[in-house]
Amino acid sequence: MDITILSIFPRMFQSLDESLIGKAQEKELVNIDVVDFRDFTTNKQNHVDDAPYGGGAGMLLQAQPIYDAMDYVETKKPGKKRVILLDPAGKTFNTNMARDFAKEDQLVFICGHYEGFDERVKDLVTDEVSIGDYILTGGELPTMSMIDATLRFVPGVLGNSVSAEDESFSNGLLEYPQYSRPADFRGKKVPEVLTSGNHEKIRLWRLEQSLKKTLNRRPDLLEDVEFSKEERKILNDIKSK
Amino acid sequence: MDITILSIFPRMFQSLDESLIGKAQEKELVNIDVVDFRDFTTNKQNHVDDAPYGGGAGMLLQAQPIYDAMDYVETKKPGKKRVILLDPAGKTFNTNMARDFAKEDQLVFICGHYEGFDERVKDLVTDEVSIGDYILTGGELPTMSMIDATLRFVPGVLGNSVSAEDESFSNGLLEYPQYSRPADFRGKKVPEVLTSGNHEKIRLWRLEQSLKKTLNRRPDLLEDVEFSKEERKILNDIKSK
Repeated sequence: MDITILSIFPRMFQSLDESLIGKAQEKELVNIDVVDFRDFTTNKQNHVDDAPYGGGAGMLLQAQPIYDAMDYVETKKPGKKRVILLDPAGKTFNTNMARDFAKEDQLVFICGHYEGFDERVKDLVTDEVSIGDYILTGGELPTMSMIDATLRFVPGVLGNSVSAEDESFSNGLLEYPQYSRPADFRGKKVPEVLTSGNHEKIRLWRLEQSLKKTLNRRPDLLEDVEFSKEERKILNDIKSK
Repeated sequence: MDITILSIFPRMFQSLDESLIGKAQEKELVNIDVVDFRDFTTNKQNHVDDAPYGGGAGMLLQAQPIYDAMDYVETKKPGKKRVILLDPAGKTFNTNMARDFAKEDQLVFICGHYEGFDERVKDLVTDEVSIGDYILTGGELPTMSMIDATLRFVPGVLGNSVSAEDESFSNGLLEYPQYSRPADFRGKKVPEVLTSGNHEKIRLWRLEQSLKKTLNRRPDLLEDVEFSKEERKILNDIKSK
């Protein structure tokens, strides 16, 4: 996979060299380039922003440097691209979108800043994506989050290939509680079933916990799950209690 | 405001020195410390993780190093704290939560990793927060996003104090389209009203665009808005078209 990030804060992406994304780059499973679109300004002051037409507080990122940076990317890396723009009005990013992005050969992320960007930038993009109902100073941090979530679905990136599919949301449910040693920590004990050695009991306990938690905290998630007969029965038992 | 981050990847937080968060630290509006809880392990190998009771793939962060790191933070920085743990089953982070966090004197973020953490870690926290319906390798990136979104509401952090309240979600609506120079860029023109100089027309156009966009893309947001008479009328006009 090849990823290009358009940003005027390229140094923020130092964080990408750590953790999972750093390892994926070392293994050459992904190549990440950061293009500073300030290098493409045509004004003497290297400004990337200007006042909005019609007035208002703050400055907008102008179309010109971003368009010219995209032309440059197209020359360096021809071919089909998913071009992703962070926008609060976009489709909310989720696990399915990450899985979908992971199938692409080329991803481009455009990081906005200041009060926003010239609306015409949207003509360059294939996906307007929201990272959630909150506002950030720039697109850099959510772009790194999206890259992390996406790379988890690229084969070979996670050491243990089952991991990405064995967590909250992957089967449509929230994950059951987990415990590791010691069995008694500051008087707080691990549930007995987990130390019983009875694998079937453990499996059922986990499934019940997972269903219970999802029902209590995120019942909306249950609408999209295709339940097995067993899951349906446990869920009905929980509801009737 | 004082922020402590518990993480085993302290170098990821280099990104915090850039952009808004870096400036807020320079202005001494916020102090941010990163505590590596690996320093608090009591085993010889400095392992922070262990296999889960009951079996399963992956490793869990153990309770002990995180508890001991929290004891250390309490000694260094006594007083009331909001302790935030990233968890997919938590309350979804949003602008209201950011505004709420911004009122606190002390925030602590615990960054999970690997397959998750020992459930007993949750006894340390005041807020289980989800950053969205997707899974990341660790809590570092979403923690930086939450800090960014929160600091925007700390007085003095944004240059222009109105900015944080003048964007998508802040008034409950998505933002209207914005344009900056040139008026004609590669044949793409700015809507005429914005260059008309008629402030009242511009205000009405923006309000209509904002309502239209919210209605089309995020009708759920409209449920929580207290509309003015004017907004109600424009919204009804849009709906009847």
